[in-house]
Amino acid sequence: MKLWQEKNIKRNKIIDQFTVGKDREYDTILAKYDCEASIAHSKMLAKVNIISSNESQKINKVLNEIIIDIEEGKFIIEDDFEDMHSKIEFILIKKLGDLGKKIHTARSRNDQVLVSIQLFVKEELKLIKKEVSNLFNKLIKLSKKHKSSIIPGYTHMQLAMPSSFGLWFSAYAETLIDDIISINNALYIVDQNPLGSAAGYGTCFPIDRKSTTKSLNFSELKYNSLAAQMSRGKIEKQTLSALSSLASTLSKFCMDICLYMGQDFNFISFPENLTTGSSIMPHKKNPDIFELIRGKCNLIQGLPNQISLLTTNLPSGYHREMQLTKGPLIESIYELKSCLKIFSFSIEKIIINKKLLTIQNMIISLQLTH
Amino acid sequence: MKLWQEKNIKRNKIIDQFTVGKDREYDTILAKYDCEASIAHSKMLAKVNIISSNESQKINKVLNEIIIDIEEGKFIIEDDFEDMHSKIEFILIKKLGDLGKKIHTARSRNDQVLVSIQLFVKEELKLIKKEVSNLFNKLIKLSKKHKSSIIPGYTHMQLAMPSSFGLWFSAYAETLIDDIISINNALYIVDQNPLGSAAGYGTCFPIDRKSTTKSLNFSELKYNSLAAQMSRGKIEKQTLSALSSLASTLSKFCMDICLYMGQDFNFISFPENLTTGSSIMPHKKNPDIFELIRGKCNLIQGLPNQISLLTTNLPSGYHREMQLTKGPLIESIYELKSCLKIFSFSIEKIIINKKLLTIQNMIISLQLTH
Amino acid sequence: MKLWQEKNIKRNKIIDQFTVGKDREYDTILAKYDCEASIAHSKMLAKVNIISSNESQKINKVLNEIIIDIEEGKFIIEDDFEDMHSKIEFILIKKLGDLGKKIHTARSRNDQVLVSIQLFVKEELKLIKKEVSNLFNKLIKLSKKHKSSIIPGYTHMQLAMPSSFGLWFSAYAETLIDDIISINNALYIVDQNPLGSAAGYGTCFPIDRKSTTKSLNFSELKYNSLAAQMSRGKIEKQTLSALSSLASTLSKFCMDICLYMGQDFNFISFPENLTTGSSIMPHKKNPDIFELIRGKCNLIQGLPNQISLLTTNLPSGYHREMQLTKGPLIESIYELKSCLKIFSFSIEKIIINKKLLTIQNMIISLQLTH
Amino acid sequence: MKLWQEKNIKRNKIIDQFTVGKDREYDTILAKYDCEASIAHSKMLAKVNIISSNESQKINKVLNEIIIDIEEGKFIIEDDFEDMHSKIEFILIKKLGDLGKKIHTARSRNDQVLVSIQLFVKEELKLIKKEVSNLFNKLIKLSKKHKSSIIPGYTHMQLAMPSSFGLWFSAYAETLIDDIISINNALYIVDQNPLGSAAGYGTCFPIDRKSTTKSLNFSELKYNSLAAQMSRGKIEKQTLSALSSLASTLSKFCMDICLYMGQDFNFISFPENLTTGSSIMPHKKNPDIFELIRGKCNLIQGLPNQISLLTTNLPSGYHREMQLTKGPLIESIYELKSCLKIFSFSIEKIIINKKLLTIQNMIISLQLTH
Repeated sequence: MKLWQEKNIKRNKIIDQFTVGKDREYDTILAKYDCEASIAHSKMLAKVNIISSNESQKINKVLNEIIIDIEEGKFIIEDDFEDMHSKIEFILIKKLGDLGKKIHTARSRNDQVLVSIQLFVKEELKLIKKEVSNLFNKLIKLSKKHKSSIIPGYTHMQLAMPSSFGLWFSAYAETLIDDIISINNALYIVDQNPLGSAAGYGTCFPIDRKSTTKSLNFSELKYNSLAAQMSRGKIEKQTLSALSSLASTLSKFCMDICLYMGQDFNFISFPENLTTGSSIMPHKKNPDIFELIRGKCNLIQGLPNQISLLTTNLPSGYHREMQLTKGPLIESIYELKSCLKIFSFSIEKIIINKKLLTIQNMIISLQLTH
Repeated sequence: MKLWQEKNIKRNKIIDQFTVGKDREYDTILAKYDCEASIAHSKMLAKVNIISSNESQKINKVLNEIIIDIEEGKFIIEDDFEDMHSKIEFILIKKLGDLGKKIHTARSRNDQVLVSIQLFVKEELKLIKKEVSNLFNKLIKLSKKHKSSIIPGYTHMQLAMPSSFGLWFSAYAETLIDDIISINNALYIVDQNPLGSAAGYGTCFPIDRKSTTKSLNFSELKYNSLAAQMSRGKIEKQTLSALSSLASTLSKFCMDICLYMGQDFNFISFPENLTTGSSIMPHKKNPDIFELIRGKCNLIQGLPNQISLLTTNLPSGYHREMQLTKGPLIESIYELKSCLKIFSFSIEKIIINKKLLTIQNMIISLQLTH
Repeated sequence: MKLWQEKNIKRNKIIDQFTVGKDREYDTILAKYDCEASIAHSKMLAKVNIISSNESQKINKVLNEIIIDIEEGKFIIEDDFEDMHSKIEFILIKKLGDLGKKIHTARSRNDQVLVSIQLFVKEELKLIKKEVSNLFNKLIKLSKKHKSSIIPGYTHMQLAMPSSFGLWFSAYAETLIDDIISINNALYIVDQNPLGSAAGYGTCFPIDRKSTTKSLNFSELKYNSLAAQMSRGKIEKQTLSALSSLASTLSKFCMDICLYMGQDFNFISFPENLTTGSSIMPHKKNPDIFELIRGKCNLIQGLPNQISLLTTNLPSGYHREMQLTKGPLIESIYELKSCLKIFSFSIEKIIINKKLLTIQNMIISLQLTH
Repeated sequence: MKLWQEKNIKRNKIIDQFTVGKDREYDTILAKYDCEASIAHSKMLAKVNIISSNESQKINKVLNEIIIDIEEGKFIIEDDFEDMHSKIEFILIKKLGDLGKKIHTARSRNDQVLVSIQLFVKEELKLIKKEVSNLFNKLIKLSKKHKSSIIPGYTHMQLAMPSSFGLWFSAYAETLIDDIISINNALYIVDQNPLGSAAGYGTCFPIDRKSTTKSLNFSELKYNSLAAQMSRGKIEKQTLSALSSLASTLSKFCMDICLYMGQDFNFISFPENLTTGSSIMPHKKNPDIFELIRGKCNLIQGLPNQISLLTTNLPSGYHREMQLTKGPLIESIYELKSCLKIFSFSIEKIIINKKLLTIQNMIISLQLTH
């Protein structure tokens, strides 16, 4: 604890570091959406004559430059700034003087963070849907290709009925449709504009929330300012529930794959560059990729619960720890996207054990006529 | 362990009791839907000429009689039967002889249970939506009535801005809309007919699954038989996720209420028949009802995770423990319905502390001009 | 909602039912411990001269009679009583008149419930330890018996090394020791007397808490009355964490068993009275018992989280929903005990596939020299 | 997906990145313990004459140099190495030639990782115990100092009884003792040497596991090699359960603090450098630090469940996703240590509202005599 006994400045740094946490890292990802929301906000402020049209254009020119910097990886939130908002504000003031401050009229960091997160989630969920659709198509192709390759169907992990690889691949394809439904649900909930709700109790300025709703391409306006604030946590939880549904599909698929790659089942294999081996056991083809997708997806399934633990029993109104939803939300979106990509890439390379058609069939028929 | 050393018959009873668990209790609730599915199945079997039209009518007559028994509380699953299926089969055979067995053609208990659960969930989610809609209307009414009753708005649990009871009530009303969206998502996923998927690998009989889809009023058919089987767990989890969303709204509302009823806030109170007191502390008005709704709703929020724990890392195909999803699913639906009813009934009786309008306002203005 | 529009009496019944919940059922189990705590309390009251020695003896005579009724299954909490405390109080007053009320001096229902739960948990955890010890011994016996029966050892679910049934059985035996350590931890935490903490803020009566600590055979006194109250939730969570540890051992064991019973592994089997079959598939030996133990144990693993969800973000002091910890606590103890018993009974009947010794060995050696 | 269509080398990099994940980051923390275990292993190899005493000394000289590098922050795992093991092996071989490889005799990465994690957890839990002890002492001091400062005691969040800051501080102090008990439990479980269990099925080399147990200062040997492997997951879960217990204490403490700092309670405050304000609302003293500790501690409470989700239903033997336990384990230990430090530093600065002594007392007495 010597740390704390040092001079004031150092002490505050440690507290700052504690309160900021990983916000700078996450905000680098969210900053683009913060700028987009600010552009819409500034346009609206001009529309209702809180700032002039000329002022709005100047502000938005700078914001657009920041967006370009972000896209080119040049936007950095240094340790002097606690988050994206303070860094963007700093740039605006540096370039525009007092005008830079005007963008903060009639809004609060609370609705700014909310709208950034929602725009981010909207974009990411759409990307995930594309990846799912890509995987769906591959599975349908595989299903057609291996339509008549027989495998046993199991109940209670006991041989039960003859089944086929066609049925197996297309079962997972059809299951992905359910996951898309859940993603659409999250998209629906997230697609309500919170901008203008300020700190949760609105603003006295005569703002036009329908205007920002339209500019930001939200389908709906979250009317009640306190409801907008209360959607913090709920949005993250419903998004993570949808991701959890998709994750459970991938996890189960990987469990099947790991089992079927084992020497006892021996139904399938994968090329060597997709498995890891052991120098002293050349027969081993470890399915590390599928084990890791399984594990990562299982961890994602627990994240809605993490949001519940964070927000349960908090009364209405903003609380600082709500910033901690950013981590599970952003990290799981990135993790799940990478799982989807690696899985899609790998599943195409699956090798169906042809001997299965004869030997395994024989076993099944033997068993069934036993 | 003496228990086990006794004779065979006793031993099997204990094992039976262990494997059956609370199934008889839950099945008494699901039996109606099982009969409805059987009626649709029998009609279809007649349509595709697996049984005769006359046979189908006889079977369905008995099934309709059982439904009436169920509705009148006369349907009992005695200890001799392990579940609703065996009891219903017993009645059919007792009344129709060998014909009673024919209903089991081209299906399995696996798709029977699935379809019963889905029909049950569909009906219950619609009832819950009605209750939510009822609560929504009451909140809008309360919001209008108390539109100009001022309360402080909090951020960080610190006095932040003036707010109103109108904003507070309508915030929860608008939040309920998000919960309805999630319930609709669950309804969408649950509204796919699994009947005919048999044990997960279909049947060789030339059944007409579109016919049962139509009779049972499902919007969609779950085409792939293994996908139907894999939806076990997913359906329960998405249903419980939707309930969890609604539960989190009620829980937060109750937390606000419990805080505001305290002597330090003292914003609201409730009539004595809705609070509990203490003989030695007459000032105390304990909000037991709201504490219990809060707690019950918090427990419901953990149930999607329980389903994840149960099903994670299980390969595809039926596993016996899937029967254990019935408990969390059925009990949480009943629990949440009772929470909704009690909450709706109680919230109307809320008493707004009128002094707040003057004193609390004064405090706020003092604070703000501090 | 018509329900609620009826007359007052009916309405209150519904609210009563909601607030009482399953308390009567759980309290029938806890009542014995409540009486024991009351006996210790009454002796102490006599010791410090709050009541006379004669009064204490009269009260304790009735309490001992109630304990006998409880043990003989004759103690019933009728709908007129909301819990065990009110029923026991009723009996005491009926038999002793005003003297019956004196037992309530210097205590509250809060510390009464706490002490009952803690006494219950102490007794049950000791019973569970006995069952675990019993299972441990059986596993050691099986380990010795099958010491030289070879099975493959797996990593990544791939054949990795030769292993043996001896190693397998004794691995689970040794793992049970870790679970016992966790149970001992829970026992340690639970073994602190909360009686006398009253509602969480002590009492002005000059009570002698060390005396009840000794009578009730607690190792330690929970000194601070608010700390005693705050241990509600923590005690349940640590108990359930210990059970969760044991449950994870059983669950993994069952997963191994279910896999090894499958036709692809085919390492082990069980007698027919421990498996379920299918009339049309005589080869099938479904491991329902092990699947259900696996599932029940997986659900138990989620219960510490349920307690977290219930108690998280509640400020210090009693809250009514704390009564809702009784359900997960009591039910999981009973469930886990039955899992342990059934597992212990069944594992002895395991049949090791002798062919494995030759064929499987051959495969392994083939693989290793590949 | 264009990414994948590029040449082989690039493709493998993406897969490598996916499988390695954050392992390099976590391994930089664990590397010290890996070296320590290797030193003990090398000594033992010399003792049983698998390598010479001279060889052992040469190996250990290099390992000790690596430890110094680690402590000075000079040890870096470059992208060419997938983990600490491969980097350390590389250094050994670079400096010692073929001799460097000999350290890998009679062990596997599986027991290497296990032993490193266990040594890390042992050291960290001891550090956490010191921090807890430090906090305990501060709370006892505060308890004595504010022994006669009256605050209300609440039940059901209703004013119930007079209480004191002395009782409040010492209640949390006494509760920390329960958390220490749980940490001791985790320490007990983690204090069993897994080194020598190899991949889970032992080794044919005549190793002396008692020797490494002694060198590494483990209290006990994990005898069964498969049990050692199965402790993966269990160790992390019991460690996280102990941290979760401590986290729940801190979280509840912070909830009390946040409530009591609000204008309605107004019992306590903190110096300005420990709160954040609002330029337009100077009265606001936002308790960000306490909100963030509350939130971070609530998230930690969910981590035992994350481990359950990861490991549930995995059969015995190593699975690759077990590497994913490193993240929750290491991050939560660091997070909780920083919460403890910040909390300990801050709680000392608490300011008790002196007016409370008169006004609040008055209110309480009014209420009680009402």
